Amino acid sequence: MKEKPLILVTNDDGINAPGIRTLIDVMNEIGDVVVVAPDSPQSGMGHAITIDSTLYVERVVLDNEKQLEYSCSGTPADCVKLGIREVLDRKPDLCVSGINHGSNSSINVIYSGTMSAAIEAGIEGIPAIGFSLLNYKWSADFNASKQYVKTITENVLKNGLPNGVVLNVNIPDIPKIKGIKICRQARANWVEEFDKRKNPQGRDYFWLTGKFVNLDHGEDTDEWALEHGYVSVVPVQFDLTAHHCIQNLNTWNLNDTEINSA
Amino acid sequence: MKEKPLILVTNDDGINAPGIRTLIDVMNEIGDVVVVAPDSPQSGMGHAITIDSTLYVERVVLDNEKQLEYSCSGTPADCVKLGIREVLDRKPDLCVSGINHGSNSSINVIYSGTMSAAIEAGIEGIPAIGFSLLNYKWSADFNASKQYVKTITENVLKNGLPNGVVLNVNIPDIPKIKGIKICRQARANWVEEFDKRKNPQGRDYFWLTGKFVNLDHGEDTDEWALEHGYVSVVPVQFDLTAHHCIQNLNTWNLNDTEINSA
Repeated sequence: MKEKPLILVTNDDGINAPGIRTLIDVMNEIGDVVVVAPDSPQSGMGHAITIDSTLYVERVVLDNEKQLEYSCSGTPADCVKLGIREVLDRKPDLCVSGINHGSNSSINVIYSGTMSAAIEAGIEGIPAIGFSLLNYKWSADFNASKQYVKTITENVLKNGLPNGVVLNVNIPDIPKIKGIKICRQARANWVEEFDKRKNPQGRDYFWLTGKFVNLDHGEDTDEWALEHGYVSVVPVQFDLTAHHCIQNLNTWNLNDTEINSA
Repeated sequence: MKEKPLILVTNDDGINAPGIRTLIDVMNEIGDVVVVAPDSPQSGMGHAITIDSTLYVERVVLDNEKQLEYSCSGTPADCVKLGIREVLDRKPDLCVSGINHGSNSSINVIYSGTMSAAIEAGIEGIPAIGFSLLNYKWSADFNASKQYVKTITENVLKNGLPNGVVLNVNIPDIPKIKGIKICRQARANWVEEFDKRKNPQGRDYFWLTGKFVNLDHGEDTDEWALEHGYVSVVPVQFDLTAHHCIQNLNTWNLNDTEINSA
């Protein structure tokens, strides 16, 4: 590479999370790094953006100033928007998000702040990757992840990504990973179990808990890859149109129907 | 219909918004209505869920008790989860969300709390529709919308929806709507312009503002339909896999590459 690529790094666990610190280390081997990340954890934020309140972004000094870093009061998607429009002088060559503490495989992509940052960058036409390790603990060991993060990132920089596509990369939490598989998103969901309690004033409240259920036993899915010791790479798009349904919906003749209600 | 369908109604503008009150009126003509909606506006929440704090849901009496209503401290996706698991005795036959005050066409689907509720219901295997009117004002006139909301809802109850698909319905804010079009999501985005200000303590802060840019002039898109006076109906899926890219990504041979960094 002639010139070093400019890499915007963000996450949803907050700027001090070990996962993003690992990601920054790897990106420093590849390009010029600027960090714009939430000042506090934002997990489960989906693709939230801040439209009804104010946003703060400020320079912070971490890590002996090896890279420029900014902490932001907003969501991961806000960080990307602010990073591109207010912090960086030019459009970055790449945006990476993570490494998330915990899985964003299969349906979790929908709830993921990590992936919302990557998708936001993708909407802006920037190649983008979200990385997640299958260990939600703060003390998770990211060492085995590093070479896979590097290989995938270098390939994205070399090959580019198609318009409208970003990568969702999940990494199994095992010391000896078998390799990388390109996958589709498994059909899975969460079966919620709300934990109902009473507050000191006697008012009921709930904690959201749940059990993950994989309904999809295809061997081409991200869940299969992860269960079998592989890093999963799912190309993710933000054109949500179910194109295969359009013809069927047209047979409903919505402009002709007169339906009598019960 | 032999038995009246059970309909879960929610939104992201809050339980008192005129849009949801209109939606409840229309649904009362079709089935048995239960409302579980946010206690305050949640616009721009994307598919956020509440995992790090507590959730309150409580019965509220509105509208002369024409239907059961619950207000919830969480996001639209939380409302659907709580509605299904804690409020309703049986799985609803339909979930409708809206009518949103403001557009959720094209890329807005990604940021939309209204659509996140419909998608959450879809993940649970419940037919679901998000409705939005192209007028963000509280005083918007929902009258012209009503017959279209009713026709589309009745057709969904009659025909069902394919697994993994929900509908994103946007309604132009004009008195004489031309009809309904099945569409694909237009390729469009927001060009952000952050409004930078100083707070009374002299610290910089930002307001997110922006300009919507439609990059897609296809006549089969939701933006085209809306501009030309039609209600747009986009089938939306939550399998985000860009299936068309998998073959291409496999040519990268990620397990063989050894790349020398710069």
